Amino acid sequence: MQIVFLFYDGMTALDAIGPHEILCRLPGAKVQRVARTSGSIHTDSAGLTLIAEYALRDISHADILVVPGAGSATTLRDYPEILEWVCSIHATTKWTTSVCTGSLILGRAGLLNGLKATTHWAVLDRLRFWGAEPISQRIVEAGKIITAAGVSAGIDMALTLAAKVAGPQVAQTLQLAIEYDPEPPFDTGSPDKVSSAMRDLLLTRMGMFFEKSV
Amino acid sequence: MQIVFLFYDGMTALDAIGPHEILCRLPGAKVQRVARTSGSIHTDSAGLTLIAEYALRDISHADILVVPGAGSATTLRDYPEILEWVCSIHATTKWTTSVCTGSLILGRAGLLNGLKATTHWAVLDRLRFWGAEPISQRIVEAGKIITAAGVSAGIDMALTLAAKVAGPQVAQTLQLAIEYDPEPPFDTGSPDKVSSAMRDLLLTRMGMFFEKSV
Repeated sequence: MQIVFLFYDGMTALDAIGPHEILCRLPGAKVQRVARTSGSIHTDSAGLTLIAEYALRDISHADILVVPGAGSATTLRDYPEILEWVCSIHATTKWTTSVCTGSLILGRAGLLNGLKATTHWAVLDRLRFWGAEPISQRIVEAGKIITAAGVSAGIDMALTLAAKVAGPQVAQTLQLAIEYDPEPPFDTGSPDKVSSAMRDLLLTRMGMFFEKSV
Repeated sequence: MQIVFLFYDGMTALDAIGPHEILCRLPGAKVQRVARTSGSIHTDSAGLTLIAEYALRDISHADILVVPGAGSATTLRDYPEILEWVCSIHATTKWTTSVCTGSLILGRAGLLNGLKATTHWAVLDRLRFWGAEPISQRIVEAGKIITAAGVSAGIDMALTLAAKVAGPQVAQTLQLAIEYDPEPPFDTGSPDKVSSAMRDLLLTRMGMFFEKSV
């Protein structure tokens, strides 16, 4: 069970690490972290640096591919080889997944054309640009492609995927292992649960990133 | 607002990255990741490697200290300088926090004596060894010390802390930013919600780690 995480400069750390913590504990999991070139990856999370052990050319197959999002997916515009790699790996996967704006990368790579998909709520409509049908839902399945909503949705996605791959009992045990019995202090995790003022405040703050992110 | 994350070999990545994703976005946050020596830190999450930019000697103050847990807290036994550092930083903090078995590190450092605290459910009783009163709760506050339950509880803890530090509106907006509107696929995130067979299965698997972790 070869599980490959795409890393890239500017990615959001939790988009990857949420699913990573779960999927890496699947029975028989062999996890590989890959970037354009191997080495240090600077996330958009206050400069937190992760290491990718592999370069794109080292990895030609994945059973599961996980593509995290970023404050700006722009970065990848300059690296068509990443999009080409995503396409070629997708041809080998059992499951191709994304978290947050990672689905815009799948879209840009041409994988979402005609499919239902989701992404961070703030850029949901951008999916249309890549021919996808935006669905306001935490997890969207379209054949072997599973897209998750913003950042923390990757945890729910990974547990859902774990059940598909290894059965519900394994997934339930993993949920218990990470004590995932959420008690969010507020009920503001979704745009339909907050005031338009709060949505606008966040969109303004995020605007300068997202403006560029299709 | 100096926010310091203690990193160490064997730590669980999500314990740190959950809170990191939230706290690093607090207004005025200056985040520092510190380890015994700066450089590569090998987590217990399939070898995922994080970078600590600072060594212990570089950091002598924190407004917020976050101590993640590990499959085995044993590692730190051989490094009393880490425990001494935790003590000395705690003397300067506004908030000292832990996620999962990170509270056993706080306990070992002598900070939990006589206090209520929590940790991963599987080792809750071990807190008594350090004079703490184990509380089966997702987040436990005892003065300026906040301990969180297993792994994913760090996200709830960080949002709760964000509200204390920057007010509820900021915390609510951060919750919206990471779209934290959890939809766990199962209701198995807490030991009282699963069969004893599932608890035992997990305890057996984790046993060889936790056996050594006081």
